[in-house]
Amino acid sequence: MDPDLEFPVWTAERQRRIEDVLDRALREIPGAPARLVEAMRYAVLGGGKRMRPLLAYAAGEFAGADPAAVDGPAAAVEMIHAYSLAHDDLPCMDDDVLRRGKPTCHVAFGEAMALLAGDALQAQAFLMLRSSAQSRILAEAAGAPGMAGGQAIDLMNVGMAMTLPDLTEMHRMKTGALIRASVLLGASCGEALAASGEEALDRFARAAGLAFQVVDDVLDVESPSSALGKTAGKDAAQNKPTYVSLLGLAEAKRQAQTLRDEAYAALAPFGARARRLSELAAWIIERRH
Amino acid sequence: MDPDLEFPVWTAERQRRIEDVLDRALREIPGAPARLVEAMRYAVLGGGKRMRPLLAYAAGEFAGADPAAVDGPAAAVEMIHAYSLAHDDLPCMDDDVLRRGKPTCHVAFGEAMALLAGDALQAQAFLMLRSSAQSRILAEAAGAPGMAGGQAIDLMNVGMAMTLPDLTEMHRMKTGALIRASVLLGASCGEALAASGEEALDRFARAAGLAFQVVDDVLDVESPSSALGKTAGKDAAQNKPTYVSLLGLAEAKRQAQTLRDEAYAALAPFGARARRLSELAAWIIERRH
Repeated sequence: MDPDLEFPVWTAERQRRIEDVLDRALREIPGAPARLVEAMRYAVLGGGKRMRPLLAYAAGEFAGADPAAVDGPAAAVEMIHAYSLAHDDLPCMDDDVLRRGKPTCHVAFGEAMALLAGDALQAQAFLMLRSSAQSRILAEAAGAPGMAGGQAIDLMNVGMAMTLPDLTEMHRMKTGALIRASVLLGASCGEALAASGEEALDRFARAAGLAFQVVDDVLDVESPSSALGKTAGKDAAQNKPTYVSLLGLAEAKRQAQTLRDEAYAALAPFGARARRLSELAAWIIERRH
Repeated sequence: MDPDLEFPVWTAERQRRIEDVLDRALREIPGAPARLVEAMRYAVLGGGKRMRPLLAYAAGEFAGADPAAVDGPAAAVEMIHAYSLAHDDLPCMDDDVLRRGKPTCHVAFGEAMALLAGDALQAQAFLMLRSSAQSRILAEAAGAPGMAGGQAIDLMNVGMAMTLPDLTEMHRMKTGALIRASVLLGASCGEALAASGEEALDRFARAAGLAFQVVDDVLDVESPSSALGKTAGKDAAQNKPTYVSLLGLAEAKRQAQTLRDEAYAALAPFGARARRLSELAAWIIERRH
């Protein structure tokens, strides 16, 4: 559990760790064509905050799991995330050319190969799991009731007015579901939790997931593209409803703080074992990209 | 096992059965947006020969499984197949407008929604399985070492010369892997097989999968679009290497017969319990669409 590590040290160590896990998982795919694997690696490696794997490792610590047991699920959620970005950036979706400070996957490999790389990454993610229960958590979070469903709602609401509850529901599915799955999958690698522990994790994950999105909307307005590593100001340019457009900048920032405090509150009864999760909640709202 | 049913009766019964299983699985997706579910249903329901589910049911019978136990895996392989068609038909891939006698998914729902419907169907497929071993079989068949990898090879070889071994390897991945998974998943629902049984199924699946592709290439040349339910003559128009372009029509047809006989031979030691699988091998090469 490395309880003595300072948070930035722990974070850097786990980021290195997941980079290595992903690198190995996407190096040895016997029989897979080299160019496809190259596109998959491009979409996944060398960038990103690895927030979802960090949440998985932290939830693993909460449940007393060894980091080695969490490696597979942590890689799986990052593969799902990376595939969703590769598809999201395609011309028929958000049509974006910059991601994690690099040309997007379809700019580098062509649209068809980026599409296939995303498809293959989704399948690969399920190979990283070790139980049927884990596959179920991941499939629900990634599919129609989760991420893909949230993206469909997003798609249908471009240029439309959206209420705050509708926006929140969209983000609960689009980004919240996979963030929640990261926490649940990490915890599934440790000892079985009491109902109170499971409820606390769920409450934490929902608050942290929503906080992440509110901060994302704030950063889209406040940060330059160079800091984000992706095109800034896209939401406004595409006339997408955001927390900033609905609440205003100041209230959106307050909202993010409130959600962080809710995440803290969910974990409060658990003391030291929830430390990394609490630190991640703070990190999520204090990040600058 | 309904051993007395004539093959066409058995086939019709199982096709009705899987249609019902797919309809139910794609009706109740709590929390999923209606339009996305509609696109998923459009891509899956009301068309197709259901060859992969039929192979799963037949392999289930081979292993003594109740059809009810095979329903989930049979639906899973068809969802993977349907998602691959929805993505394959997109403008950045094959750019096709006709499939199973209907406008393709992106023509009916737009490119972005067709992309998401495919993504969501892949996730949904994993929800239909019941064990980690099944998830592994499906993920390997669908991903970079299987279907997606084969599609990438296909993509990279459009307009290029291709040797017969390369073409065969491409199809082993592109269509063969999922056909093999259909057989293995169906068998996984029954009693554990002796090594000889597993080897026989594997040999059968490889021969039947390749036979299917050879026949597909023949039909692309010989059948009108109206019979195929998809655009005929696409391969030649796109200058894609096929068994017909490499072997000639007559030799390709002979090849299909040889592969069917190989499929028969693999099953010969198993008598009545392999009956449906044998009948399917004949059906695959005698089909007219």
